[in-house]
Amino acid sequence: MSMFSMVMAVRDYECDMQGVVNNAVYQNYLEHARHEFLKAHGLDFAQLTARQINVVVVRAELDYRRSLRSGDVFQVTVETRRESRLRLIFVQHIVHAESGLTMLEARFVTTAVNPQGRPCFPKELEVLLEGLPEGLRA
Amino acid sequence: MSMFSMVMAVRDYECDMQGVVNNAVYQNYLEHARHEFLKAHGLDFAQLTARQINVVVVRAELDYRRSLRSGDVFQVTVETRRESRLRLIFVQHIVHAESGLTMLEARFVTTAVNPQGRPCFPKELEVLLEGLPEGLRA
Amino acid sequence: MSMFSMVMAVRDYECDMQGVVNNAVYQNYLEHARHEFLKAHGLDFAQLTARQINVVVVRAELDYRRSLRSGDVFQVTVETRRESRLRLIFVQHIVHAESGLTMLEARFVTTAVNPQGRPCFPKELEVLLEGLPEGLRA
Amino acid sequence: MSMFSMVMAVRDYECDMQGVVNNAVYQNYLEHARHEFLKAHGLDFAQLTARQINVVVVRAELDYRRSLRSGDVFQVTVETRRESRLRLIFVQHIVHAESGLTMLEARFVTTAVNPQGRPCFPKELEVLLEGLPEGLRA
Repeated sequence: MSMFSMVMAVRDYECDMQGVVNNAVYQNYLEHARHEFLKAHGLDFAQLTARQINVVVVRAELDYRRSLRSGDVFQVTVETRRESRLRLIFVQHIVHAESGLTMLEARFVTTAVNPQGRPCFPKELEVLLEGLPEGLRA
Repeated sequence: MSMFSMVMAVRDYECDMQGVVNNAVYQNYLEHARHEFLKAHGLDFAQLTARQINVVVVRAELDYRRSLRSGDVFQVTVETRRESRLRLIFVQHIVHAESGLTMLEARFVTTAVNPQGRPCFPKELEVLLEGLPEGLRA
Repeated sequence: MSMFSMVMAVRDYECDMQGVVNNAVYQNYLEHARHEFLKAHGLDFAQLTARQINVVVVRAELDYRRSLRSGDVFQVTVETRRESRLRLIFVQHIVHAESGLTMLEARFVTTAVNPQGRPCFPKELEVLLEGLPEGLRA
Repeated sequence: MSMFSMVMAVRDYECDMQGVVNNAVYQNYLEHARHEFLKAHGLDFAQLTARQINVVVVRAELDYRRSLRSGDVFQVTVETRRESRLRLIFVQHIVHAESGLTMLEARFVTTAVNPQGRPCFPKELEVLLEGLPEGLRA
């Protein structure tokens, strides 16, 4: 298990006519935090993709607790767990910075696909299950 | 239960550096189909929102089976189910038009929130559980 | 010169907290119409990109006349003009279907970049300056 | 004239199949920087909108010089100029942090629209033409 967290802020174009962040945008936030988590572990999503190692989401579960609004600052956390030989789980939370309230909880089941389109779990992804160096820990 | 379906096509700006539709974009497709489903039942999301009846997603589950790519044409289906007094479930599928393959299955748990922020289930939403007139059925 | 047009409709997730289509989204509409225009001429943006012919926008001018709103149906037009040896101009309009009012006028200056990053104008793009077969004309 | 600047970084979902930031996304970056510029001057876009003072873009000009890529860090600058009684101009640059290269130059012509849909220039927007307190200056 490895724990990571980063701070982001709502941008107005991410809010919809209800005046709150649109549901789809949370997936953007969560993906961005996962990719930053990869970077903190020395992996780069763009480089993996260029080398035809496609890390893909096979299932997403999102529990929307409260709505983020214009200007809100929030923390996105990332934790990983190995579910099976081929599957890596990301557990993520979005926490409102000011109030400490949990806005969203999510769980992403991912796998990697090799250039032949077969599920695989490249050795280099195993680092994602290890703890981060102290300075990068949540 | 009511069944609805509409046809859409991938737009290139919806594809990411992997060359496939980005995961978050499927939530856009699914939301758009739900709102069109509302319209087919005589309800309008923008008008509901203007009247401060906010229909909100409390949980989303998405199973990504295969990736849509540039130019793909697909069908998005919508079915509803009442789960409890306050919760309406939308079951949705994205089906590749040419091959008939299911690309994604999803389940959205929704509720409505009144102007005081309280969960409610306004009577006018009950129509969403009824069958559509024949011409609009999937 | 070649003239093309397609019909689109506003999706609710494209509207922002002002209740109108967000300014950036018009660029999505216009890009999508340009890519469909390419297809009508037998060219495919994704295939050009895969072959490392990157067609790029070097300048965009957008005149926002009126705002599109939830549910609005509109027409996006595309016309091309050769400006210089290396530059192709797209002139585009967004017209509200019901009222016939022009919502936006835009002008995009584009060029192609070869795999070495040099501006070029591949011969196959010349077809974009020719008229479309009758059935595809605006 | 007032000068403001903020730092942002490319998120992977903002890149398209060409592997670079999609053209429309730059408008998101630029809008976000303008709204932060408003905040630095004590104005809040969401609050202005809630009070039915809609600040709208009437013309956008964007010169795309170079493409931002996955992971790039960049600075977005904002400067204002009064063009006429009713029009406020925002001149903006996107500068690549590492190389110092200008990636994009843009010019936005804006006006405000009152609740009756009439162009106006509310007195409180005049602060946007004044210099920022030292700590907030670019």
